[in-house]
Amino acid sequence: MRIIGIALIALCVTAPRVQAQESPAAARAGIDRFNKALEDATRRMDNAATLALWEDDGISILPQTAPIVGKKALTKFLDEVMAGIAGAKMESFALDCHDIEVTGTSATEWCNEHQIVQLAGDKKFDGRGRMLLVLHLSADGVWRMKREMWNQASP
Amino acid sequence: MRIIGIALIALCVTAPRVQAQESPAAARAGIDRFNKALEDATRRMDNAATLALWEDDGISILPQTAPIVGKKALTKFLDEVMAGIAGAKMESFALDCHDIEVTGTSATEWCNEHQIVQLAGDKKFDGRGRMLLVLHLSADGVWRMKREMWNQASP
Repeated sequence: MRIIGIALIALCVTAPRVQAQESPAAARAGIDRFNKALEDATRRMDNAATLALWEDDGISILPQTAPIVGKKALTKFLDEVMAGIAGAKMESFALDCHDIEVTGTSATEWCNEHQIVQLAGDKKFDGRGRMLLVLHLSADGVWRMKREMWNQASP
Repeated sequence: MRIIGIALIALCVTAPRVQAQESPAAARAGIDRFNKALEDATRRMDNAATLALWEDDGISILPQTAPIVGKKALTKFLDEVMAGIAGAKMESFALDCHDIEVTGTSATEWCNEHQIVQLAGDKKFDGRGRMLLVLHLSADGVWRMKREMWNQASP
């Protein structure tokens, strides 16, 4: 039995494993929380809340734009977007995400988004897009954005 | 010892684990092979070779296009693209991928692509794009595309 015990310990120690992995239900709940927080932060146009949902080394890839790498660059980008639409107010923002797949501390999903923004001068922006997201379970047990690509969707 | 043995078996069985996980070096080599194969298949405009690089439940998300879900839909889409540019020849295609991250049987990377296509009637298409890819290590030990989003890059 000792030999079997040692063999089992060796098997446990050497078997590949992902650290800090959650149960499927816990992962799903954590990702649902992430999606809700992303929707809320975007709706409120709250850059600080949005940035808190990013990993420090996160990457955002937008059309016709060099990849935005790291939280410092993401902060600068969001600040510039807000400065460019000063006075704007998000009238509505809806996010629905699909096909969540979790592998250890990594997850992926894709989302539809629809935003209606009241711009200065009575203009209105009504746009739809899609995102492919790669999320990561941080050491503090919170799922955050690791990679995002966005492209335009048809109305 | 029997109790310890049973406890160890229970520990092994219940401990979260990723199946068929590779060493970091093996994963990197497998993903490099995938990237090379994707570049080659695209350059040769070889739909069958491209489709062999997709998982059966793969999803491609392109601008202004409903998500293309599953190999049957991907096949139809690629066939239609080829029919739409009959007589075209890929003059050059370059793919360079960055920031590969592997978590068990899942990986992500983003890539720049540059294609020059000789179209019918002496027209030429010179386009650049970026892709965010989610790859999956299949049961046969080959990395394949699980999710892809593409958007246009500036020249």
